Amino acid sequence: MVTPQVHNGYTEINAVAWEDGRVVMLDQRLLPAEERYVTYHSCDAVAAAIRDMVVRGAPAIGVAAAYGVVLAAAEAWRTSGTDWRQAVPPLLQELERARPTAVNLHWAIQRMRGLFNSITGDPVTALLDEARAIHVEDREANHAMGEIGARIIGDRAGVLTHCNAGALATGGYGTALGVIRSAHRNFGLTDIFVCETRPWLQGARLTAWELGRDNIPATLITDSTAAMLMASGKIDWVIVGADRIAANGDTANKIGTYSHALAARYHGLKFMVVAPTSTIDMEAATGAAIPIEERSGSEFYSFADAVMAPETTPIYSPAFDVTPAYLIDVLVTEKGAVKAPDREKIAVILEREHAPI
Amino acid sequence: MVTPQVHNGYTEINAVAWEDGRVVMLDQRLLPAEERYVTYHSCDAVAAAIRDMVVRGAPAIGVAAAYGVVLAAAEAWRTSGTDWRQAVPPLLQELERARPTAVNLHWAIQRMRGLFNSITGDPVTALLDEARAIHVEDREANHAMGEIGARIIGDRAGVLTHCNAGALATGGYGTALGVIRSAHRNFGLTDIFVCETRPWLQGARLTAWELGRDNIPATLITDSTAAMLMASGKIDWVIVGADRIAANGDTANKIGTYSHALAARYHGLKFMVVAPTSTIDMEAATGAAIPIEERSGSEFYSFADAVMAPETTPIYSPAFDVTPAYLIDVLVTEKGAVKAPDREKIAVILEREHAPI
Repeated sequence: MVTPQVHNGYTEINAVAWEDGRVVMLDQRLLPAEERYVTYHSCDAVAAAIRDMVVRGAPAIGVAAAYGVVLAAAEAWRTSGTDWRQAVPPLLQELERARPTAVNLHWAIQRMRGLFNSITGDPVTALLDEARAIHVEDREANHAMGEIGARIIGDRAGVLTHCNAGALATGGYGTALGVIRSAHRNFGLTDIFVCETRPWLQGARLTAWELGRDNIPATLITDSTAAMLMASGKIDWVIVGADRIAANGDTANKIGTYSHALAARYHGLKFMVVAPTSTIDMEAATGAAIPIEERSGSEFYSFADAVMAPETTPIYSPAFDVTPAYLIDVLVTEKGAVKAPDREKIAVILEREHAPI
Repeated sequence: MVTPQVHNGYTEINAVAWEDGRVVMLDQRLLPAEERYVTYHSCDAVAAAIRDMVVRGAPAIGVAAAYGVVLAAAEAWRTSGTDWRQAVPPLLQELERARPTAVNLHWAIQRMRGLFNSITGDPVTALLDEARAIHVEDREANHAMGEIGARIIGDRAGVLTHCNAGALATGGYGTALGVIRSAHRNFGLTDIFVCETRPWLQGARLTAWELGRDNIPATLITDSTAAMLMASGKIDWVIVGADRIAANGDTANKIGTYSHALAARYHGLKFMVVAPTSTIDMEAATGAAIPIEERSGSEFYSFADAVMAPETTPIYSPAFDVTPAYLIDVLVTEKGAVKAPDREKIAVILEREHAPI
């Protein structure tokens, strides 16, 4: 199946990969009970997989979308030959609306489309090169962010993370979990708490599984145990990923992130967001401009067909919340870290070519 | 089976009842999928039911414990006749340690034992009368607290509740849900949000079921959606029950309560604790003296045999947290309400015979 990569001694899980002209994804809905890889043959199938959360996590969605564009272009080339550029847009419709909050989806599609006019002949090779570049760049950004973030939290820290911002959510290594991986390797970080992350249980199902594979110790808590744990002095840093960051630093991330940010500030602890610059949406002036997806909430009513709540009870299930920039102590990107992020500092860092040495 | 009572037009669920010389309990582990009543013939069986959470909620545990003492005394009378007083204590051992945090358990046992020396002959009738009095007084306390709390929140409020502090958790009507029931009836309260309350899902499984039976509208959210909902302006009051209240007002309640209290204070909202005075433990000077039960955490690993988290992942599962008194705006008891509760005000209210008219 998909060959795992190794970095810093950790086995990297490939949430998404390109193999033999097809997109292969690890079906994250089945974890941790089953590790099943599924092959997708069309852009629409990739879109459905993103919508149905076979793959999730903003950067991983971006990588999947890039490979989806390759499939769309391949189909357009088969059916329309040199008119493929006109045939592609209808094939991307489902992909473009697969998930509304993660901006990396749109970023990746735009980057892929930006190449169209420079291509002559069969577009697949050039587009696949670009999709692979998006994938590899994301993984390398995570390696860089891991080192930057680990240096910031240093050698004496207890950390809390929410959701899954790991290899499963990205091109590999992870954003928040990349920092935790690097801190574990470089400083022996072992006080790691993972929120189970209702309703989809990304923390319990994915992060616990991913860290367990790497023998990184982590303790699972319910989301609402976080504040008590902070009060007890066991946490120094809350470290999370992001689905979209507005121009002013307001950050949309998995529902519950805002709650942890509030509690961290109340207890005088630090709050770190780790995300590649592809997650920053300069067209969203503030968090209020970020669309917040609401899910159907089937996870409220049952788990594995067993009843959790009466089906007649209405639910409200926003998938994300917005943490205002003033609650964020550090934003770590592949181009460097920004303390107390705001519009000006974010604009400056976006102009950088690389992280400062 | 157990005949439901009606109060204020609401059907009261009996979590615990005495029928034909036995204790009958609604098995709350099976809700909402199944409404099954189970009969218990011995004090040890009642203790096991409390430990295994067939019944839960501090006041309901107190009622069950009182009936358990009746079963113990009946057994002691059968086996030891007039020496029953010496035979009872060993029979109460399991009951006394069934759950460590809820103080009502000890309060009820102590109240029952206080009667022993005044009894002549077969103790069952006198003890059953006392157990029934504990049950009825708890229900009536809830009716009183419902009215007091409803008057305080008034006619324009959105409320959030956590866990289940309803009929299922008490002798009937509920503490926090008693206030919500009264506010629904008296003021037409309809903006009611219920946190699902991981890991045992008391909100999703029990509160949603209980309010649904009474046609009281309520929307279910994940625990960590609460802060976002508060930020959006939809909540005016957080209303919860209590498992034990220290002499200074620090309140142990279901894990997650502290997180909601922090978020409520941050957003300038009000936080109300509703509990009968039997929940106040004057021997615990502050919340630090309250023992916090840790559960095994089986609810983390699976639900209905389906895997939720890797079984190798350590978990930390405190069943309760402590909300410091300074985050509590109002404590509602059957003897009246206390604004900004502290040691002095709590001592004063405990001296009262009744609620002020």
